Amino acid sequence: MTTTPPAPVASVDHAKLVARMRAIVGTDNVLTAAADMAAYECDGFTIAKTKPNVVVFPTTTEHIVGIVKACNEMGVSFLARGAGTSLAGGCVLVGGGVMIALARMKRILEVNARDRYAVVEPGVVNVWLTNTLKPLGLHYAPDPSSQGACTIGGNVATNSGGPHTLKYGVTVNHILGVELVLPDGRVVTCGGPTEDAPGYDLVGTIVGSEGTFGVVSKVWVRLTKNPEAYRTLLGVFETIDDATNTISDIIGAGIVPAALELLDKTMLSAVEAAFKFGFPLDAEAVVIMEVDGLTAGLQEEADRIEGIAKANKAREVRKANTEAERMALWKARKQAFGTIGRLGYPSYCTQDGVVPRTKLPEIMRHIQATAKKYNLGICNVFHAGDGNVHPILMFDERDPLQVKAVLEASHDILSECIKLGGSVTGEHGIGVEKIDFMPLMFTADDLHYMVRLRTAFNPDGRCSPGKMLPTAGGCAEPSSFVGQTKPGRRAAV
Amino acid sequence: MTTTPPAPVASVDHAKLVARMRAIVGTDNVLTAAADMAAYECDGFTIAKTKPNVVVFPTTTEHIVGIVKACNEMGVSFLARGAGTSLAGGCVLVGGGVMIALARMKRILEVNARDRYAVVEPGVVNVWLTNTLKPLGLHYAPDPSSQGACTIGGNVATNSGGPHTLKYGVTVNHILGVELVLPDGRVVTCGGPTEDAPGYDLVGTIVGSEGTFGVVSKVWVRLTKNPEAYRTLLGVFETIDDATNTISDIIGAGIVPAALELLDKTMLSAVEAAFKFGFPLDAEAVVIMEVDGLTAGLQEEADRIEGIAKANKAREVRKANTEAERMALWKARKQAFGTIGRLGYPSYCTQDGVVPRTKLPEIMRHIQATAKKYNLGICNVFHAGDGNVHPILMFDERDPLQVKAVLEASHDILSECIKLGGSVTGEHGIGVEKIDFMPLMFTADDLHYMVRLRTAFNPDGRCSPGKMLPTAGGCAEPSSFVGQTKPGRRAAV
Repeated sequence: MTTTPPAPVASVDHAKLVARMRAIVGTDNVLTAAADMAAYECDGFTIAKTKPNVVVFPTTTEHIVGIVKACNEMGVSFLARGAGTSLAGGCVLVGGGVMIALARMKRILEVNARDRYAVVEPGVVNVWLTNTLKPLGLHYAPDPSSQGACTIGGNVATNSGGPHTLKYGVTVNHILGVELVLPDGRVVTCGGPTEDAPGYDLVGTIVGSEGTFGVVSKVWVRLTKNPEAYRTLLGVFETIDDATNTISDIIGAGIVPAALELLDKTMLSAVEAAFKFGFPLDAEAVVIMEVDGLTAGLQEEADRIEGIAKANKAREVRKANTEAERMALWKARKQAFGTIGRLGYPSYCTQDGVVPRTKLPEIMRHIQATAKKYNLGICNVFHAGDGNVHPILMFDERDPLQVKAVLEASHDILSECIKLGGSVTGEHGIGVEKIDFMPLMFTADDLHYMVRLRTAFNPDGRCSPGKMLPTAGGCAEPSSFVGQTKPGRRAAV
Repeated sequence: MTTTPPAPVASVDHAKLVARMRAIVGTDNVLTAAADMAAYECDGFTIAKTKPNVVVFPTTTEHIVGIVKACNEMGVSFLARGAGTSLAGGCVLVGGGVMIALARMKRILEVNARDRYAVVEPGVVNVWLTNTLKPLGLHYAPDPSSQGACTIGGNVATNSGGPHTLKYGVTVNHILGVELVLPDGRVVTCGGPTEDAPGYDLVGTIVGSEGTFGVVSKVWVRLTKNPEAYRTLLGVFETIDDATNTISDIIGAGIVPAALELLDKTMLSAVEAAFKFGFPLDAEAVVIMEVDGLTAGLQEEADRIEGIAKANKAREVRKANTEAERMALWKARKQAFGTIGRLGYPSYCTQDGVVPRTKLPEIMRHIQATAKKYNLGICNVFHAGDGNVHPILMFDERDPLQVKAVLEASHDILSECIKLGGSVTGEHGIGVEKIDFMPLMFTADDLHYMVRLRTAFNPDGRCSPGKMLPTAGGCAEPSSFVGQTKPGRRAAV
């Protein structure tokens, strides 16, 4: 079985397509000028770009239904987009078509504190929801580094994680239900506020399916009670090995920290240049180590963590003694990507691999060796507790040789993740970037059934074309998407 | 779209079918005598029974592949079965065919304490796994009342819950991956020990799909650390309303108990007759209330729960002061079904409905009214913290009028659950029993896509026929399965 290729869009009557879209959502909710649409050509994986034919901003489910039906009638592909902060080309509209930008569907429709759920439109920005919940002592747990910009809808598409994934799980653990406009324009509701509905559990399948099952138009999310207290520590280490061994030992001791985040020396120098937090610039790594929960017993846990870090030769263990100090540590972590410009490279590519936690020392050594081999700058800031590495490959996108080196080095690192028993994505998704890895991770039978599953929802392949699963013939050629894209400007993470 | 009807089995060459099965698994692993196969005609929902043509016991994945391929070649339906403790006819082989009994695939293949997972065959009994893990301070969290008999494979098929679901979640929250023999005999692996694998998350779809996507041949389960301590209380109440209001208030106060289990007066009298625990026989309800976690802070939580119960007019709040006292309370809860015989009815039917927690007083009043209306004995023991009621309808199956009354009363109660915003199953599944309710809970479009999804896995409907989704024409007629079954003996829960 092969994937149906996306419908060719070049042959579409552009004026007619634009008129249909304007009739559905109104003229103000349609972009057609090349300059206006430039921001919609790519996501944070700027190496892959394609131009949409038109960008439309629905504000209701009925708008989405109208758009999808019109696309089907005209044989045009379509793709939903949140804030475009994804990092693997998940919102690149392969082959062109209608970009359904959900940024204007941004209402929080209901907050039910008693039954611990909220209902939101897909364009609600992740942190808005948590800010809204503050007076209730609740929050929405998944907190990607991009949470100030990324949307709940985008989080659903990629099954986003974040620093607190270690204790609280990824997006799928916090989604109770979705309203989904199917690729044929039917609207279905999967799950909802009642737990464990009968029938097939489609929610778990839809979350992380990168838009290939339809357009999510409404989301029921689980709300989490704010912890009574936190203890946040910063371990300072002379070697990466000491840092990663500390992480394994903490988990091995039966402690479930809220977060264990590692920043390496290069990353620290950029953060320090930007914020002047007073991080040690001669340490090889620091680890932000947080526990949360009831006040009672929490200090003991923090003390045990400190002991484990010192047993692994931590030079120093600093403590956030105030909420302001805690916030400074988290700012350093979450704004780290924004400081990379300080390191003097015009572009960067954030990779996303997973290894069993105990293999962190090995993968970190491999990343360092890969940087040398390809003569690339690589810094690291990542969810160490999950074994989820994020090497950041820095380069100049005007130099085709450097672009090639980034792609090859990424391939090297991700292949090593597979070899160590891990995978090629922890949270960024497959997008267009990693499609070629799928046959390395799955058997032909596994992929066959994923394609059959997609076909059940998306028989024409018109919805989110060219995502997740390799098309026939393409899977054997590494980086087959590069031919249809051009190098980008700068990652906006 | 309609469901393909299961292949007719009467026309199959029985001798040839038996010979093929014996060739695959050996003569000792095939049952053909009617007396031997009697136990395989039904599960705990004894009202629905059908005879399999043959019962086979594979001991390897390759055996399952061989059986499935032979069934396809001969046009025979097949169904996997664990311990047969399900309660909605999930392991009734509608239309006959090959019963794949997994009880002899019972090895625990790996226990990895450091990475907190185990790999088991589907026939491993739930409690064996937890018993094996005891020396490691770990356990497998989902604990159905039938955990002494039910299998992990059966738990996966029905997405089983249990008393501790309230805090720890249902089966799907504890399954990391499965090996699945697809209905065409291909073997795929979904998920595994690494969290958040790329590709579609089929694990969440397969868990709870009642065998309609294939036969699970291996399971990766998550292991949970044993809590450091417990506090187990028994609230004694004069009215059901006081008991259920206590439950709502505990959750509303932000406490997440490990369990909140209600037993009503009739149930208590049976338990007391069997075990003589000293339960008060004049109270309308008792609630087992348990918190667990770190010792620090736990007593405070227990005290708050006691305060909430007393504020809701609890006559008394007893405390389990020793592990033996705690075990006695849990024995009362988990063995409750086994004591129903004391109430003087030859049969019973355990229903399974869900309502929002705050609607518990209303559904309990409706259940009492229904008992009167149909002149049926009904007792109650259930997962009150989840809003998951289990009215137990007691009857004499030799009286067709009583059987009819049980079916109609069940329909009444479950319809009321839907009306109150709940659903018709919390954990027992749809099986053959509740197929007619699916069109009441889902739109035609929702059902259409569930059928499409099933068809992607199971195009001929030969695997687990007649489950989960209504067949064309049958959905409008309540209890359409009764025609093809006959009343049973006694529920073995």
